[in-house]
Amino acid sequence: MTDRERRQVGRPATIEAPRETILAHAASLFATMGYENTSLQDVARAVGISKAAVYHYFSTKQQIYDEIVVVMLQQLEAFVRERVEKAERSEDGIRAFMVAHATFMEENFTEFVTLLHGHGGTSRVRSPGEIAARDSYETVLRTMLQQAQDRGELNIDNVASASRAILSMLNWMSRWFRPDGERRAAEFAEDYFKLLYMGFKRR
Amino acid sequence: MTDRERRQVGRPATIEAPRETILAHAASLFATMGYENTSLQDVARAVGISKAAVYHYFSTKQQIYDEIVVVMLQQLEAFVRERVEKAERSEDGIRAFMVAHATFMEENFTEFVTLLHGHGGTSRVRSPGEIAARDSYETVLRTMLQQAQDRGELNIDNVASASRAILSMLNWMSRWFRPDGERRAAEFAEDYFKLLYMGFKRR
Repeated sequence: MTDRERRQVGRPATIEAPRETILAHAASLFATMGYENTSLQDVARAVGISKAAVYHYFSTKQQIYDEIVVVMLQQLEAFVRERVEKAERSEDGIRAFMVAHATFMEENFTEFVTLLHGHGGTSRVRSPGEIAARDSYETVLRTMLQQAQDRGELNIDNVASASRAILSMLNWMSRWFRPDGERRAAEFAEDYFKLLYMGFKRR
Repeated sequence: MTDRERRQVGRPATIEAPRETILAHAASLFATMGYENTSLQDVARAVGISKAAVYHYFSTKQQIYDEIVVVMLQQLEAFVRERVEKAERSEDGIRAFMVAHATFMEENFTEFVTLLHGHGGTSRVRSPGEIAARDSYETVLRTMLQQAQDRGELNIDNVASASRAILSMLNWMSRWFRPDGERRAAEFAEDYFKLLYMGFKRR
């Protein structure tokens, strides 16, 4: 059976945007109840359709999970790109990237942290789709840094390292940031940007 | 029963440095087989003593785990402190901290990553001893940054943020660094230091 044929099992659901609706409910269930504790029956019940209707769109729970992660990475990229593209100067682009990433993380906290990073959660194999979506996202940052370097607008002599440093600071936030804390994720990202932009060296 | 009394169960082992030896073997088993899959009997067998002898020193597997993590953090702190204290200028101290942390991580990779960060592993509750050891370690860095700022030797206007940024970059290495890769962890740490020291701003 091809993927296409597998998806033909079950009846189509009679709701609007069924794929997206199933993914949204499943994401919420996975994030709150855990992947292992969520069945396709739970997903169907949350959406208000039959399990057979879920099978019309997805053949396994893993397929749903993988697609949620890919969609989330694509949404993150779209969110960040929109803000980066408004920036006029190179430094504004980097700041916009960092602040937007942190903002998206905070606005989608439970799903972002639980599904993307594993909330101290179980180890998981990344799907080829996820790896591609992640590469695509990281390329937004690396391209921006490379262009700034090529134009001589900023002092970034090691683009790979700078990109890694920025993503590391942002990614580690998923381990300690608390949405109910006093400061917003974007504020921490601003601090990090200033630090990287100005540097420790006394001038 | 007090902790002291609990420890008196079983006979003392007839090996040298029994506590340390038990911890070392347990750490290696937890890191390779996983905490859940390791029994106190496995630990006793690896050390070459009876299970009763293990009970003479530790009352539960959790107690052994917690102590391993605390000991590892204390070793990390001792390792890093020794290298930081040799540094003459503030910037050398920060570089030494970053390079030493990365080196220690690489030299103790499996245990460091599996036990301290959870290798995509199960979530765990941090013991009070671990929290204290972690605070103590982070204070080494924060104190160094604060002193550099107070002496006006470096341009670090937000010590909390700078400290968090440095530790984030180092901690995130536990998620992507591969000991069998081409570059040493210390080299990545050097890159990060240069980036933070010089800053992105063109001068």
